[in-house]
Amino acid sequence: MKIFKEYGYYKELIERHIMDFIPEIEPNSKTLYDSMHYSLENGGKRIRPAMLLAACDLSGGDVAQALPYACAIEYIHTYSLIHDDLPSMDDDDMRRGAPTNHVAFGEAVAILAGDGLLTSAFEAMNKDMLIYFDSPELLKRRIRASYEISKGAGCKGMVAGQIADIESENKSASKELIDDIHLNKTAALMVAAVKAGAYLGGAGKELVADLESYGENIGLAFQIADDIQDTLEDRGGATADSGTIRNRPAYPTLYGLDESRKRFEGVIGNARKIIAPYYDNAEFFVELIDMIIGLAERGQIAADDKA
Amino acid sequence: MKIFKEYGYYKELIERHIMDFIPEIEPNSKTLYDSMHYSLENGGKRIRPAMLLAACDLSGGDVAQALPYACAIEYIHTYSLIHDDLPSMDDDDMRRGAPTNHVAFGEAVAILAGDGLLTSAFEAMNKDMLIYFDSPELLKRRIRASYEISKGAGCKGMVAGQIADIESENKSASKELIDDIHLNKTAALMVAAVKAGAYLGGAGKELVADLESYGENIGLAFQIADDIQDTLEDRGGATADSGTIRNRPAYPTLYGLDESRKRFEGVIGNARKIIAPYYDNAEFFVELIDMIIGLAERGQIAADDKA
Repeated sequence: MKIFKEYGYYKELIERHIMDFIPEIEPNSKTLYDSMHYSLENGGKRIRPAMLLAACDLSGGDVAQALPYACAIEYIHTYSLIHDDLPSMDDDDMRRGAPTNHVAFGEAVAILAGDGLLTSAFEAMNKDMLIYFDSPELLKRRIRASYEISKGAGCKGMVAGQIADIESENKSASKELIDDIHLNKTAALMVAAVKAGAYLGGAGKELVADLESYGENIGLAFQIADDIQDTLEDRGGATADSGTIRNRPAYPTLYGLDESRKRFEGVIGNARKIIAPYYDNAEFFVELIDMIIGLAERGQIAADDKA
Repeated sequence: MKIFKEYGYYKELIERHIMDFIPEIEPNSKTLYDSMHYSLENGGKRIRPAMLLAACDLSGGDVAQALPYACAIEYIHTYSLIHDDLPSMDDDDMRRGAPTNHVAFGEAVAILAGDGLLTSAFEAMNKDMLIYFDSPELLKRRIRASYEISKGAGCKGMVAGQIADIESENKSASKELIDDIHLNKTAALMVAAVKAGAYLGGAGKELVADLESYGENIGLAFQIADDIQDTLEDRGGATADSGTIRNRPAYPTLYGLDESRKRFEGVIGNARKIIAPYYDNAEFFVELIDMIIGLAERGQIAADDKA
């Protein structure tokens, strides 16, 4: 019997275990621990780890055994926010209603907290693999999951999206560039989350492919909604033909607001279609779609969990 | 028959393959590739990857198959230098006679280049594991190697050393704090290099333990020599009783120059003693000791490959 699990179930599980896979810190590096802890405990919707756990569940896996990977992906997401907020990057002072990491701990500590979180993610997954030396099949699933996460976070994934985003500043953007940035910056790690969860749960090829496609559409939906929101907030600040918001390429300035809303509805529709066949066991994935629509309607995408 | 291999052999091999395990970069993130390439090609002694390959060799392994791990550890070392040089950290403009990454590419790109290198290290190792799914024994060696590297680079290793180093500024240091910083900041990744190489080569427990101990002593030798050098360069800049150089704790100001030299000779002597039984097959490890002594005598430790 499948137990019905909602978003809140996964979120609560992740938050209970979020510090479990950070190595015990020695007294001389207590500040490192404090700064990582500060950002990890600072709210957020835990979308990526929840996606990972739900994908594992849907694939018939044991969610408790997927926790190191779920937390690893949240460590990676959190490191990316800390580095993204730095003065030389987006220079944000506040995130989720609290001072950003570098405001609270200083720039040097914030950089190292990010580095520590990223490294801890892989340390956690590697350490977990050691447990499965006598179960070749379960071991392979873990290696595949970790590899997906490394790709999603890396130079053809999230980091590529970040650099393309920075580079695109003050340039008029092509549709290809915008798609590329959005896919890498946000969707790559969401795709990694569901694929990793699917592998951990032992999903077959078809389910892996469906979850991948779902993750990609959800990632695009997030980013388009974020762009729409920025446009509504910044109205008048960007010239209509430059294809930029805050001097970076964005959907609405390239396509117009109406067309952007249609695109948002399009990718949301894709996600619904993909998950429909699994409906009875995929409550979370339907809930996530509704949640994103709700956030977009209330204009709360960027404020809470951007990038 | 064992082929005699010198330092130069490993160094040349690493430099020939140093870009092989960086993911192919898409046009929109070309700057990311360029900035990573810039720092990876910018000289350096390649000590850590050479240690890894030599340890693999000494353990009877195939050096060519250890290359992803050797390059991974050089990616990690290189990322740590890029982040360490940033204005909010050590604020260095030059490294190895060339502008530092952030001077050449700007701070934002430098931070992302570091992030990209760190992630690529784990992506490279993870990808390599996929090849060995049908060879359980070789697969386990790879997981152990990758885990050692993650630990050496992480929150109980290199990143811990960095934060303790920063935190210790303007504090008078205890001997324990100095040992702790040195072990984590420099020795941890060297220990990881030789242990990873030993695992990859299929070393038994005794050889793994000996190489670990060798790596620790070599790491300490590096750091003590670096401190001695800084003291000689900064003479007069630090007060004798504060235990600091450039306002950070250091050996010579705590122990005096003579005692520091004795300590340097002590750890070098330990390394020699540990590697002696393997002498006929461990030419590299003897050569490395002699090289460090030479660098220390010529005052070239910090200038070239610090931290």
